[in-house]
Amino acid sequence: MSTTKIIKHTDENPQVEHPENEACYSGLQVNAGIEQPPVINPYLKHRKHRPQLTAADYVEGLRKGDTTILGQAVTLVESLLPEKQAVAQEVIEKCLPYAGKSRRIGITGVPGAGKSTSIDVFGTYLLDRNPADKLAVLAIDPSSERSKGSILGDKTRMEKLSIHPRAFIRPSPSAGSLGGVARKTRETIVLCEAAGYNHIFVETVGVGQSETAVHSMVDFFLLIQIAGAGDELQGIKRGIMEMADAIAINKADGDNVDRAKIQAAEFQNALHLYPLPPSGVEPKVTTYSGYYNLNIDTLWHIIDDYFQAVDRNGYFQERRRQQEKYWMYETINEQLKSNFYNDPEIDDLLRIKQRMVLDNKQSSFVAAGDILKFYFDKLKKTD
Amino acid sequence: MSTTKIIKHTDENPQVEHPENEACYSGLQVNAGIEQPPVINPYLKHRKHRPQLTAADYVEGLRKGDTTILGQAVTLVESLLPEKQAVAQEVIEKCLPYAGKSRRIGITGVPGAGKSTSIDVFGTYLLDRNPADKLAVLAIDPSSERSKGSILGDKTRMEKLSIHPRAFIRPSPSAGSLGGVARKTRETIVLCEAAGYNHIFVETVGVGQSETAVHSMVDFFLLIQIAGAGDELQGIKRGIMEMADAIAINKADGDNVDRAKIQAAEFQNALHLYPLPPSGVEPKVTTYSGYYNLNIDTLWHIIDDYFQAVDRNGYFQERRRQQEKYWMYETINEQLKSNFYNDPEIDDLLRIKQRMVLDNKQSSFVAAGDILKFYFDKLKKTD
Repeated sequence: MSTTKIIKHTDENPQVEHPENEACYSGLQVNAGIEQPPVINPYLKHRKHRPQLTAADYVEGLRKGDTTILGQAVTLVESLLPEKQAVAQEVIEKCLPYAGKSRRIGITGVPGAGKSTSIDVFGTYLLDRNPADKLAVLAIDPSSERSKGSILGDKTRMEKLSIHPRAFIRPSPSAGSLGGVARKTRETIVLCEAAGYNHIFVETVGVGQSETAVHSMVDFFLLIQIAGAGDELQGIKRGIMEMADAIAINKADGDNVDRAKIQAAEFQNALHLYPLPPSGVEPKVTTYSGYYNLNIDTLWHIIDDYFQAVDRNGYFQERRRQQEKYWMYETINEQLKSNFYNDPEIDDLLRIKQRMVLDNKQSSFVAAGDILKFYFDKLKKTD
Repeated sequence: MSTTKIIKHTDENPQVEHPENEACYSGLQVNAGIEQPPVINPYLKHRKHRPQLTAADYVEGLRKGDTTILGQAVTLVESLLPEKQAVAQEVIEKCLPYAGKSRRIGITGVPGAGKSTSIDVFGTYLLDRNPADKLAVLAIDPSSERSKGSILGDKTRMEKLSIHPRAFIRPSPSAGSLGGVARKTRETIVLCEAAGYNHIFVETVGVGQSETAVHSMVDFFLLIQIAGAGDELQGIKRGIMEMADAIAINKADGDNVDRAKIQAAEFQNALHLYPLPPSGVEPKVTTYSGYYNLNIDTLWHIIDDYFQAVDRNGYFQERRRQQEKYWMYETINEQLKSNFYNDPEIDDLLRIKQRMVLDNKQSSFVAAGDILKFYFDKLKKTD
């Protein structure tokens, strides 16, 4: 995908849009505030009338492993426009029979734990082991909504993977609630699997509620810690420790090796305090160095052993079934909200009522009641 | 309320119900498994045909400060039955003109920080200062759903307040999602204020997302910490520190006093790293001892100074306005969900679809889509 240019524009304003899409064409740039010149780039003109793809086109492209189409399909899934959402749902439904055949691995750790470097090194190791393997790296970043920043936004931090022909990297969807963002990532997994990616990494920062969302869509959950950064055990939330299928202590190189090993022993002891997870596989702790490429094979074997074990004892399928149930409810809750908030009339009414509430002219409960009455009355009238 | 007996029963089975309501009549008890004898308690018989209260009855009782009616009104608000919810919303609407005239104080801290003892001592101090003051203590406990346990369930931990005639204590609503539980607590504040309670404490455990919910319904947010329990700064989530209007370090007694003071200085330094909160009042840090009743007046003055400051600079009203806006959206989101999940036909369909998803016969997305289609089709047909 990294070698492909995606160009998006509208008829009224044919400049390049979606700057957050790092693959978009950026050859023609003007400073903010200066009027855009008429389009003189012949490439833009050439692509101007690109026909709208149908759901079948998307699925056909995906099944061929076309990364441009995959990128466009993910953008479609992430779109908040109802007409795009309709096509997106059709694409996902058509992809479902081809999905599910991958190892889904969640990776979390505080900012600075070295997640990007680790994913770069570990992903490359994995792809080098088997020339038939393909890897998609996705992300859920709960902070992107507020800060407009994004983990994985800086693709240069995955130097090797970003130019690897069998790797597909996609930053976190930036719009909407955590629930919405997580659901879109869950749907993106389906697209990637249909496109033949048999390893999916889902990266998240180890703060807030996003781990729960990631945990609900992966088969294996890896917690990355840093060696020698003080009393680490204090900083980790109990809930995340309980979710981890393995803990990997990064930056175990040079002077840090001994400290990292002591820390690993501490973590292993701490994990003994918890009951055996439902997988029946005791969480392992290992040390490694992403930057110096040390002990990556141990990490791979821990993960591979886990997948073999849960395949044998049936937990792999059981976890996926429970996740499907979770996503049924999540999808319902998201749709109930988006059906309401994406209605332009509701949007207008919300603005008016919000003003009244802020001006103390109406209470929140009464305002909410009025809007809901309008909404349900409207639903009754529509055919 | 503590001296009042609430009796609830049904015609078919006239025994005492709602064991979670600590004020309910408990004079007649039989062991589990033994058949109930016919009602011989004349008091129960006498109350058997108690008429259903109307919204106007509730409001009248509340306005008189009748704690029995207040307790019943809160139970009504907490009910999940649609017909009860309709009455509840009417009661709340009628109470709104009398609401808002209280100091709402949120109190959080990890389990074991001594919240209950502190609330008992601080609440008694506050009520003793002014014989016209009334205090309601509410709670939001996110863990109650899973563990079925509840903070504040053990009322004996608030020895003085539980028998104080001007105090009303109510444990956390135990049913529903955090959003639902929080909304019910927000509505209970309205009831308490209409009943003349001019101080509202909302207690929560300092884990999970409940602080955000509490923060969105109080004027002042107090974080309780424990002295001398190791490296406290590590254990606190950044988000909670940022929300706190004051930090009070408990158990500053005996050998702990010096350690608590050092810790207070550390917290004060840590708080300097954050920008001044929107209130314009720099968060204060103090030490105290709930158990030994030390330094409670300092705590009171910090809170009183805060209320005077935000009253002068207008932030008090501004924060309440923003909270009203927040609750408008929260109420909408909750109602969108409850309208869906409280539908018996939807409930049946959910059960069927969940089974299909668990049996791998349908994907989560398709199952969710089917149920949503049924729901919106049904809404169109109903008059």
